[in-house]
Amino acid sequence: MSEVYAERRARLRARCAAAGSAAALVSGAANVRYLAGGAPPGAVLLVGAAPGTGSASGSGAGEDTLLCSRPPTGDPAEGRLDERLRRTVLPPAGGDPAVAAAETARAAGADTLAVEEHHLSVARYRAIGAVAPGLRVTDLGTAVEQDRVVKDEDEIGCLRIAAEITDQALGELLESILVGRTERHLALELERRLVDHGADGPAFPTSVATGPHSGRRGHRPTDRRVEEGDFLSVCLGADYRGYRVEIGRTFVIGTSPADWQIELYDLVFAAQRAAREALAPGAACRDVDRAARQILASAGHGDGLAPFLGHGVGLEIEEDPQLAPGAMGKLDACVPVTVEPGVHLPGRGGVRIDDTLVVRQVADGGPELLTITTKELLAL
Amino acid sequence: MSEVYAERRARLRARCAAAGSAAALVSGAANVRYLAGGAPPGAVLLVGAAPGTGSASGSGAGEDTLLCSRPPTGDPAEGRLDERLRRTVLPPAGGDPAVAAAETARAAGADTLAVEEHHLSVARYRAIGAVAPGLRVTDLGTAVEQDRVVKDEDEIGCLRIAAEITDQALGELLESILVGRTERHLALELERRLVDHGADGPAFPTSVATGPHSGRRGHRPTDRRVEEGDFLSVCLGADYRGYRVEIGRTFVIGTSPADWQIELYDLVFAAQRAAREALAPGAACRDVDRAARQILASAGHGDGLAPFLGHGVGLEIEEDPQLAPGAMGKLDACVPVTVEPGVHLPGRGGVRIDDTLVVRQVADGGPELLTITTKELLAL
Repeated sequence: MSEVYAERRARLRARCAAAGSAAALVSGAANVRYLAGGAPPGAVLLVGAAPGTGSASGSGAGEDTLLCSRPPTGDPAEGRLDERLRRTVLPPAGGDPAVAAAETARAAGADTLAVEEHHLSVARYRAIGAVAPGLRVTDLGTAVEQDRVVKDEDEIGCLRIAAEITDQALGELLESILVGRTERHLALELERRLVDHGADGPAFPTSVATGPHSGRRGHRPTDRRVEEGDFLSVCLGADYRGYRVEIGRTFVIGTSPADWQIELYDLVFAAQRAAREALAPGAACRDVDRAARQILASAGHGDGLAPFLGHGVGLEIEEDPQLAPGAMGKLDACVPVTVEPGVHLPGRGGVRIDDTLVVRQVADGGPELLTITTKELLAL
Repeated sequence: MSEVYAERRARLRARCAAAGSAAALVSGAANVRYLAGGAPPGAVLLVGAAPGTGSASGSGAGEDTLLCSRPPTGDPAEGRLDERLRRTVLPPAGGDPAVAAAETARAAGADTLAVEEHHLSVARYRAIGAVAPGLRVTDLGTAVEQDRVVKDEDEIGCLRIAAEITDQALGELLESILVGRTERHLALELERRLVDHGADGPAFPTSVATGPHSGRRGHRPTDRRVEEGDFLSVCLGADYRGYRVEIGRTFVIGTSPADWQIELYDLVFAAQRAAREALAPGAACRDVDRAARQILASAGHGDGLAPFLGHGVGLEIEEDPQLAPGAMGKLDACVPVTVEPGVHLPGRGGVRIDDTLVVRQVADGGPELLTITTKELLAL
């Protein structure tokens, strides 16, 4: 795996060199993990221009250095650091690794440092300017995030395992007695089962929503108990080696769903299927969103919809691309995204159906569904 | 409770006015919750100079406004928003509430806006400058964090309940069979018990460390199983209405601790007691740290010690003050802090003992211990 990280860093170095920056300071935790294999809390990565490639404007920093605020613990949840990283530096206690990185870059002869202005606080930015006044600080922007959008097969392998774990945890819950249990307990049980099946942890806080809460995106579990006749919607996902997926399903509690429940379920299911079928390399992100949104809107549910239909997943549970009305980009092959339409009727409840899929060429079989739990309307 | 939040905001307004700022933009989540009673994810709070108090340099923004990226859900984990907040604004989908706040301040006639440079990213800072070019943007610094250091009795009441919940969860664990269970399972069970007893959630990721892992601060639970003869160290805490405490204890598994275990335990216990006894209004933070550190150092454990002995707790699990060798301040009454020395012997394990206490005057009975689980060396 070590070469993968070295190649990713080489790509970033080349990009920086092309933009006239001798070195880049990566401070977003997922970005650090993507480039270094692991990310102890608070660690930053200094990626220097490779020796010999220094631009005319100055020599490169020459090596890649991880700077941590405490020693890496070797904890698997922090990932496995690439041992090729030439040096790991610990600033003095209380010191800011980002500031230490700027000092390191300056000492190595770099004249320009590209930083992630969307992650770095103004205070840290000023501190960098104060310790390295001769250093020109530029904006790296979301260069690393953009590199992370298309996944390699190892990354997709991790997502596939995360999805298997998630399906297992959900499947076990469906076999247990649900009536009378609280949302909080069901959520905790799902998280325990994720870990039982090999997850490093939940990918995000598990959502369990019953009755009038059902169908609400991101509902935080309460002490409400599952009752006969309820809709029950759950949303959960595993983190496996840092890679995160999500699944959302809605069930009915009791033997026979009411007519309004069947109708609403069928509608959301149709919207979700339309969006899944719209996933293809070259498809505009906004068109995938529209495929689902227009079905829900034409049934009179256009107003309360979430501002987006889905999003990329990977080392973060929400990353690029976003599937939304205002999204500008197009999908590529090997991009994993969620497709998660939902309708919530205030006071009554609602339906959400959420899958994680990988965009694939038609010749490769079309979108690859990672979360395979049935989407039939089960009565539990 | 509503008056409390209004008073806190009035204090901030007065401070801003004194510094020449018409308005303040608060973006740190715990700071927003402290001033508004709740904090939906991503929400920011615009605190305007009160009407009529506009400084000579310009008129005040005149009101306080919460700006959210999505509607508040009423979820108890987000807190209970002060209904006196005059307006709650939702920027357009995808819009940045901080940028919308700057526009709002400008529209209300503010000429200066103080922002939290230690929270706000450089990119958001630049976006604020772009939408409100006439606005002078200054640094609010850690003004709100400093106001949060000394707690009122309602806040201490929440911490006391959080500690009771934590003690209950830990007490139940001690009554169960431990040998053969994994660190991960024990951590999940502790978190479930915290929620069972009324916590909004764990205050931080629960740490369970067995055998050679024991005594390591912040150890992330693994699949290692508890064995006879192990040290077992746990660190956990409840979040109750946003207020967070922590407790850490170390036990021996089996009937008779080894001599080295007793010796190490007694040493850490003595260090912890010395630091607890040093807690008093007016005591220098570094002196409290030294009280424990010198006992551990004189026994030959000076090198591997954590860079700090303890820290404040409240709406965040780590906040000011820090009890560390380089800390400059003094303690005040009604400041809750942790006292958590530990020694870890690589390959063998170690001991950590961690309490949350409130600094009190001697006349009021001295430091108030919130986490009351016994610190005897129990053999489980």
